[in-house]
Amino acid sequence: MPVLVMKFGGTSVASLDRIRRAAKRVGVEVANGYNVIVIVSAMAGKTNELVGWVQETSPLFDAREYDAVVSSGENVTAGLMALTLQEMDVPARSWQGWQVPLHTNSAHAGARIEEIGTENITQKFGEGMRVAVVAGFQGISPEGRVTTLGRGGSDTTAVAFAAAFGAERCDIYTDVDGVYTTDPRIASKARKLDKIAYEEMLELASLGAKVLQTRSVELAMRYGVRLRVLSSFGEQSDNAGTLVCAEEDIMEMNVVAGVAHSRDEAKMTLISVADRPGIAAAIFGPLAEAGVNVDMIVQNISEEGRTDMTFSCPTDQTLRAEQAMQAAKEAGEINFHDLVVDDAVAKVSIVGIGMRSHAGVAAKMFATLRDEGVNIKVITTSEIKVSVLIDRKYMELAVQALHDAFELEKAG
Amino acid sequence: MPVLVMKFGGTSVASLDRIRRAAKRVGVEVANGYNVIVIVSAMAGKTNELVGWVQETSPLFDAREYDAVVSSGENVTAGLMALTLQEMDVPARSWQGWQVPLHTNSAHAGARIEEIGTENITQKFGEGMRVAVVAGFQGISPEGRVTTLGRGGSDTTAVAFAAAFGAERCDIYTDVDGVYTTDPRIASKARKLDKIAYEEMLELASLGAKVLQTRSVELAMRYGVRLRVLSSFGEQSDNAGTLVCAEEDIMEMNVVAGVAHSRDEAKMTLISVADRPGIAAAIFGPLAEAGVNVDMIVQNISEEGRTDMTFSCPTDQTLRAEQAMQAAKEAGEINFHDLVVDDAVAKVSIVGIGMRSHAGVAAKMFATLRDEGVNIKVITTSEIKVSVLIDRKYMELAVQALHDAFELEKAG
Repeated sequence: MPVLVMKFGGTSVASLDRIRRAAKRVGVEVANGYNVIVIVSAMAGKTNELVGWVQETSPLFDAREYDAVVSSGENVTAGLMALTLQEMDVPARSWQGWQVPLHTNSAHAGARIEEIGTENITQKFGEGMRVAVVAGFQGISPEGRVTTLGRGGSDTTAVAFAAAFGAERCDIYTDVDGVYTTDPRIASKARKLDKIAYEEMLELASLGAKVLQTRSVELAMRYGVRLRVLSSFGEQSDNAGTLVCAEEDIMEMNVVAGVAHSRDEAKMTLISVADRPGIAAAIFGPLAEAGVNVDMIVQNISEEGRTDMTFSCPTDQTLRAEQAMQAAKEAGEINFHDLVVDDAVAKVSIVGIGMRSHAGVAAKMFATLRDEGVNIKVITTSEIKVSVLIDRKYMELAVQALHDAFELEKAG
Repeated sequence: MPVLVMKFGGTSVASLDRIRRAAKRVGVEVANGYNVIVIVSAMAGKTNELVGWVQETSPLFDAREYDAVVSSGENVTAGLMALTLQEMDVPARSWQGWQVPLHTNSAHAGARIEEIGTENITQKFGEGMRVAVVAGFQGISPEGRVTTLGRGGSDTTAVAFAAAFGAERCDIYTDVDGVYTTDPRIASKARKLDKIAYEEMLELASLGAKVLQTRSVELAMRYGVRLRVLSSFGEQSDNAGTLVCAEEDIMEMNVVAGVAHSRDEAKMTLISVADRPGIAAAIFGPLAEAGVNVDMIVQNISEEGRTDMTFSCPTDQTLRAEQAMQAAKEAGEINFHDLVVDDAVAKVSIVGIGMRSHAGVAAKMFATLRDEGVNIKVITTSEIKVSVLIDRKYMELAVQALHDAFELEKAG
């Protein structure tokens, strides 16, 4: 029988009633002839409660014990989901990460999946079990300890299972009904996409669209797992969601698939840095050590051996970044006249595989923003993306204008 | 280094603050030179919450899934306790049942311990770990699934670890400061015992003193584990608790160690049963099948081929017992004239190893009750125990009178 993976996030299993609703969807797919692997998160709020206890107990906690505590929420949901399915006469059982086994490395609290043993579950499918309910987000280390995959790890678990079992599809049930051309709370014309290419989804995920975890999309792309995002709340019939798939599977594409935004950005500029080989390493090394997530980097043209270096990072990391730069200056590792911080900026990006073959997309973006009177502070580009840093107060305006300019309300 | 087992029940780990208090006690024993195995229960209330979810989801639940869900509470406490100890610079780590491994049979929700693998924990002790924090109440079945040992299973876990590791002592921390000569809420003169023999504790435990689970005392007796019951709330200095140990280890003993009581008893009498070989089996077989916990049994002298058969059971099982008896009568398996139920009785017992060598203990008990005007309805005896069934309204009076008569307020 073909295998389907279905993943239910925390809000989709937040109560016994919601677990029942989710189980009904699983039952439909079983009736459709699938053997189903269900990946569950902890009930909404549970993981935060457990994390809170760990942090209160030990601010600099042993990540192995963090994992032992935090993974328990998924075990509860997995057992309850299996019981609910059994009540519906669907043969089901729960699996904890170590029982599968889902092998990870030893990077506790952010472990990477190394291998999924398919033998045990396959054997049970052979004996008539129709649903394997797997506790998401967790695995077992080479030392035999429980590991967790980091936040959003249940998405990654689901995709990894779909790859290991050659599943026909991996359905991610969440509290939104798909991937949109942009945030519907900002642009009312935002349209749900029927399909989106892996590469586009990757850019959107890392640009702040919180529908899917970046790692899960990477994994799906690498193994060609067809990923579907859909709501666990709507009616089943009109709930096709969004399919994340290979470019080739999408017949008609817009040049731009979507507009992403990221609100809490800060721009920092080191004025008049002594420009010499290795200066970038001298700046960004200390920043990385200080845990600053540097995003965009721009270096102005050098004049008379000095240059301005601009970078962006999340707003709440500016203090750490300033301290790291002052310390490096005092240690004589870098030299600059001044450090200017602008913590009222936002990032707006357009993403689309079609850009590869269409010239003038970036130019159209810049012209659109100019027409709205929005000043661009920093630009970065990739093959399928253009990002700009602008004043935060213009963010909504920019998103709406770009959505209109590229006619994203119309299907490709 | 010598090994000590310390077990903390649900109220002793009910909050992060209480976990810290418990961890301090562990730290003291580590400083005393022990390697410590700590057995923890779930935080008070957690197991009930999980059991409630399972029952609501599936009234006739799959016990394997029940175990998967219900065992999670202990995993949380074990991790938090390990973190707390680490914060105190005590090298500690948590162990789940399958990691130890603690092997059980497959009787889910009430599994029996079959073997405890000591190799992993011993190795870690060898590497400098000082405390192994073990999630109580759980193990792993031959099929690799999580099992639980049934209510009170954490006491049993603790004793089993003490036996497997040859621990010097097994300390059970709870919300009372030891074993008393009787319930202090009933007899203000009740005295805490410094020592009590296994056999006496077993009788007291099964007679309704809720300090220790019966199975754990049986296990301690079989393996000669010195068991100490003490409070996790009092000051450490004046908290010696009660030591449960072999008779030989107790220098001076009272003839009677304690007075136990059990409030919610019912007495049922089958009037004029046809007395023939096998009649007892014909009566108590159906009662056992109906899940009635028959306690005392008395058969009157038979006259002209008919007899009266009296037995006791918990009050809330009388209806089930009546139905079973009427059904057996209708099926022609037994024959009786009438079934009389008295559900307002209580059981009062005196327990003491000294009875073996002292005559007249039972007679003194009966005389004491007679002097108080308490009528005795049923009597049963064992080598070290005399139990009587009396009207429930006299229960407190009987306990106090017996406590006085045997001078239990005085140490032996």
